[in-house]
Amino acid sequence: MAMKPKDYHPINFKEKLSKFTEHWSPKVIAEMNDYQFKVVKFQGEFVWHDHRDTDETFIVLDGGMVIHFEDGKVKLSKGEMFVIPKGKKHKPEAVNECKVLLIEPRGVVNTGEAHGKLTAENDVWI
Amino acid sequence: MAMKPKDYHPINFKEKLSKFTEHWSPKVIAEMNDYQFKVVKFQGEFVWHDHRDTDETFIVLDGGMVIHFEDGKVKLSKGEMFVIPKGKKHKPEAVNECKVLLIEPRGVVNTGEAHGKLTAENDVWI
Repeated sequence: MAMKPKDYHPINFKEKLSKFTEHWSPKVIAEMNDYQFKVVKFQGEFVWHDHRDTDETFIVLDGGMVIHFEDGKVKLSKGEMFVIPKGKKHKPEAVNECKVLLIEPRGVVNTGEAHGKLTAENDVWI
Repeated sequence: MAMKPKDYHPINFKEKLSKFTEHWSPKVIAEMNDYQFKVVKFQGEFVWHDHRDTDETFIVLDGGMVIHFEDGKVKLSKGEMFVIPKGKKHKPEAVNECKVLLIEPRGVVNTGEAHGKLTAENDVWI
């Protein structure tokens, strides 16, 4: 007997972003091999930090933000991405709320080597 | 003497997509560790294929598409993503032109194990 064809569900960024309100708290929405896709809302200034073992990708889904580096900065708007090289110190900042898709290996902590009150629980799925 | 702060350039999807017109021909726009981000334009039907060694991520930047599987399908629209599991046979299709961001390890060939006239040159940067 033939199986009924499955309708697989796409992952919708807006729908995932509607499920939480807190800032600086990445939520996992998908995995590809040992990498995770996380949606996150930024507002205000984050802490200076780096990730010693990996690059990190930011894709802006809505709004705008700045990533500060020790030697300059990059401004990111909706429809833009940037890959932060491994070990490069950075500080994200968003004057108004900015919605971002992060891509990085499973296990990366949001504050990198700088732990503190903004360190979010890891591997939280929505 | 202090160095002038650098203005790093974001990668803008629309700007990258404006640089080519051909279909089924992924162009690399960024790398994160040993993964690549590629923009591609789909229109029509691709070939059935799979990638034996890796998952593959599709993010729809504009338009809509369907990915057919042997056991069903997924419909993807702008602002949606899907991760195709390693080894799962799939056939992308787009009735109207669809603009997609692909994420996969460096070296993955677009037609996977099914080589043919739609096999694109790999590692082409724009």
